[in-house]
Amino acid sequence: MARAAAAVEQALEVLLPPVEGAEGRLAEAMRYATLGGGKRLRAFLVMETAGLFGVNQTCAARVAASVEMLHAYSLVHDDLPAMDDDDLRRGKPSAHKAFDEATAILAGDALQCRAFEILGEPDTHSDPQARCELVMALGAAAGARGMAGGQMIDMVAEGKTLDGPAVTRLQALKTGRLIQYSAEAGAILGRASTQQRHLLAAYGRDLGAAFQIADDVLDVEGSAAEIGKTAGKDAAAGKATMVAVLGLDLARSHADMLARQAAAHLDGFGGRAANLRALAAFVVARRS
Amino acid sequence: MARAAAAVEQALEVLLPPVEGAEGRLAEAMRYATLGGGKRLRAFLVMETAGLFGVNQTCAARVAASVEMLHAYSLVHDDLPAMDDDDLRRGKPSAHKAFDEATAILAGDALQCRAFEILGEPDTHSDPQARCELVMALGAAAGARGMAGGQMIDMVAEGKTLDGPAVTRLQALKTGRLIQYSAEAGAILGRASTQQRHLLAAYGRDLGAAFQIADDVLDVEGSAAEIGKTAGKDAAAGKATMVAVLGLDLARSHADMLARQAAAHLDGFGGRAANLRALAAFVVARRS
Repeated sequence: MARAAAAVEQALEVLLPPVEGAEGRLAEAMRYATLGGGKRLRAFLVMETAGLFGVNQTCAARVAASVEMLHAYSLVHDDLPAMDDDDLRRGKPSAHKAFDEATAILAGDALQCRAFEILGEPDTHSDPQARCELVMALGAAAGARGMAGGQMIDMVAEGKTLDGPAVTRLQALKTGRLIQYSAEAGAILGRASTQQRHLLAAYGRDLGAAFQIADDVLDVEGSAAEIGKTAGKDAAAGKATMVAVLGLDLARSHADMLARQAAAHLDGFGGRAANLRALAAFVVARRS
Repeated sequence: MARAAAAVEQALEVLLPPVEGAEGRLAEAMRYATLGGGKRLRAFLVMETAGLFGVNQTCAARVAASVEMLHAYSLVHDDLPAMDDDDLRRGKPSAHKAFDEATAILAGDALQCRAFEILGEPDTHSDPQARCELVMALGAAAGARGMAGGQMIDMVAEGKTLDGPAVTRLQALKTGRLIQYSAEAGAILGRASTQQRHLLAAYGRDLGAAFQIADDVLDVEGSAAEIGKTAGKDAAAGKATMVAVLGLDLARSHADMLARQAAAHLDGFGGRAANLRALAAFVVARRS
């Protein structure tokens, strides 16, 4: 993961706009929100799944940078006062605190825009058909019936009690779809067979679900220092989580089951998928 | 323009997500912000420039719908309390008033996402290379060195006095780049020559500049009923406009000059470009 993080950091440095001109503050905020932070889980997924098909690492790093920009935009907007109102992100002030609300909104907007633009550029893949598939898949993952839709459900559900299936769907949209896209992106870059693409999508789906439940468990158990954001926040806000539905112990074992299920989708990929299998174990074992 | 508006309205109806599921409120807000409003200037530009090259009207209408979604997202976010704080848009409550701030932020986000997704889809053009060019051109027009950058400059400049060149650059980014893209889109769809694409881009650039100055003049002269948004707002907010720099009379004649210059770029296109020439005259003559 450290290697993927370094590769994506380098790509982000080049692909984010330079801080210059009267609009320099915008580039500054985009860089603040994107560079030097996070586990780079999504970048790792792109790099590793691309590696299964021998995809050029420079191309894979561009797609990894694109998905990390998309993810960063979603965090910047989620943290806004009108949304989750969180002052802390990745152990430092969130973008609207470090800058201001208007700049944070614009930085998120410009990050999403750049994420799509990168996918369309020739350096991302020699075949424009593959680039279009990346654009379409990211659009489906991030839009009204993906990540943004999940965030909407989350806002609407605040203070209400959701049942298991409703929480599962919320999380599948809000965080699952982008993680699934990250795992699928390698298959698109590698012009993999439809079956291989489906297997990696299924891996990403189960991994994303396990990851989110583990995150909810951490929110209850962790300290702010360990997780780099305000702890106990979800419960305080009456957020719908699997911990609220199942309780801590059952939630933990449900996440374990999903992680094992994720790894099982990789059976056909042999030894090359060892890191992806290890990741599935890691997301449910991590402490931060 | 009415014909283009009808075609894009029909395309938007189909291309916007349906209102269903727990996330239905998001689709509702996207539809509220996009359907049934505005002059559809950008859609008209796409349809007319595509018409110069005999592009299939269904394909052109999809690109027109995409650019109107992008434009609608920018209006929704610009109207937010943290940005221009405007309660009125196209003669009705702005999105954050009709819904709430969180929903407005998400609706803008999802509209931008859908705009790019549409461009990647096979129905937009049979050649994936053309679709990638549309994605790249929209990315450049809407991002940190385009529309979002222009909005950033606008926020930073509030209360300061900008000179003519600085206001020109602000407006070129904030509104000019997306209008230019709309005029270029037809050339991309029509696989036009580089020279033809440059001419249409130049037309769009000058037209956009004329349009924005005319808008600033209207903001000073018009009533809220005529322009469908709060009048005199820019001056009250200390916004940088060409009217502030040049005064009303000079600003008006500068806009006229730009409109004539825009039309002159179309000389090589003959009679087929009559509507585009008439548009240049219209944007500086309109009362609302």
